[in-house]
Amino acid sequence: MTKQFYEKTLKSETLYEGRIIDVVLEDVELPDGKTSKRELVKHPGAVAVIPVTEQGKIVLIRQFRKPLERAIVEIPAGKLEKGEKPEVCAARELEEETGYKTNKLEKVISFYTSPGFADELVHIFYTEHLEAGVENTDEDEFVEKIEVTLEEAEKMIETNEIFDAKTAFAVQWLKLKNQK
Amino acid sequence: MTKQFYEKTLKSETLYEGRIIDVVLEDVELPDGKTSKRELVKHPGAVAVIPVTEQGKIVLIRQFRKPLERAIVEIPAGKLEKGEKPEVCAARELEEETGYKTNKLEKVISFYTSPGFADELVHIFYTEHLEAGVENTDEDEFVEKIEVTLEEAEKMIETNEIFDAKTAFAVQWLKLKNQK
Repeated sequence: MTKQFYEKTLKSETLYEGRIIDVVLEDVELPDGKTSKRELVKHPGAVAVIPVTEQGKIVLIRQFRKPLERAIVEIPAGKLEKGEKPEVCAARELEEETGYKTNKLEKVISFYTSPGFADELVHIFYTEHLEAGVENTDEDEFVEKIEVTLEEAEKMIETNEIFDAKTAFAVQWLKLKNQK
Repeated sequence: MTKQFYEKTLKSETLYEGRIIDVVLEDVELPDGKTSKRELVKHPGAVAVIPVTEQGKIVLIRQFRKPLERAIVEIPAGKLEKGEKPEVCAARELEEETGYKTNKLEKVISFYTSPGFADELVHIFYTEHLEAGVENTDEDEFVEKIEVTLEEAEKMIETNEIFDAKTAFAVQWLKLKNQK
């Protein structure tokens, strides 16, 4: 890893400590010795699952997203609880949101969603081992489960029903996987 | 679009107005009549470009990302200025960060990066029409340009040098494109 671009923290001030995110303002020293400010959103991290049924359908959920003021369709996902292992969280969120249990998750990738301003890291898993379980969403979460073919999911990207990075990634990943 | 999950805003309080992001705390009424709180990060939106040279190499940049406390390798990207058209911003950021000019950008996709807490929408473009220009990064931005093959980019995903959603998406998109 190159060190040449390192930005040294001169001052760090927590502006907001929230239920899910914290907001931190930092004064940094740039590589040329000048100073600048960085606004940082601290997030606990998240998991997402690409669940595929025996019939080859992708299990998705439709959910209202307040930051966007609209509902979008996403792969099942959720925030990591403190100290929770990503694969444990993934199995839990899958069951809560879709009613499917799984005991076999394959790691696909981890990536940062918004490296310019946030440290949210999303861990993505795949499973084709789904057993009927019990839907049991969080108290303040309202979701609708849908099951679609890969072609239908691709159409939902064109119509902006699927409209987020992790789900767009998941649809491409399945397309590449099916070609193998 | 289903309306059944709509969350009505009861109260909205701006907690922080920053240089790049604003933070808003909202009280919402849930579909079952109960109330909850939503923490929202407001972001101006961003653009990114998948630039491919005549030799078929992908042009990437290595950049220190303060939220992650490390440098990662990404497709060229930047924030939208107020009122700026995405394709204008994309051509500008491409030239600033890589030195390449382009007058032909193809729209690939737009997606939200973190729909759970932020409204950042990223517009992604593709170009294989690159002309030598002048690198001229923002005053507080330090970037290193690298040009890699698709296979090298895939390896960089495995080693977490490429570590963000838009660039992981871009690598998959190019792989699918090359198969056509």
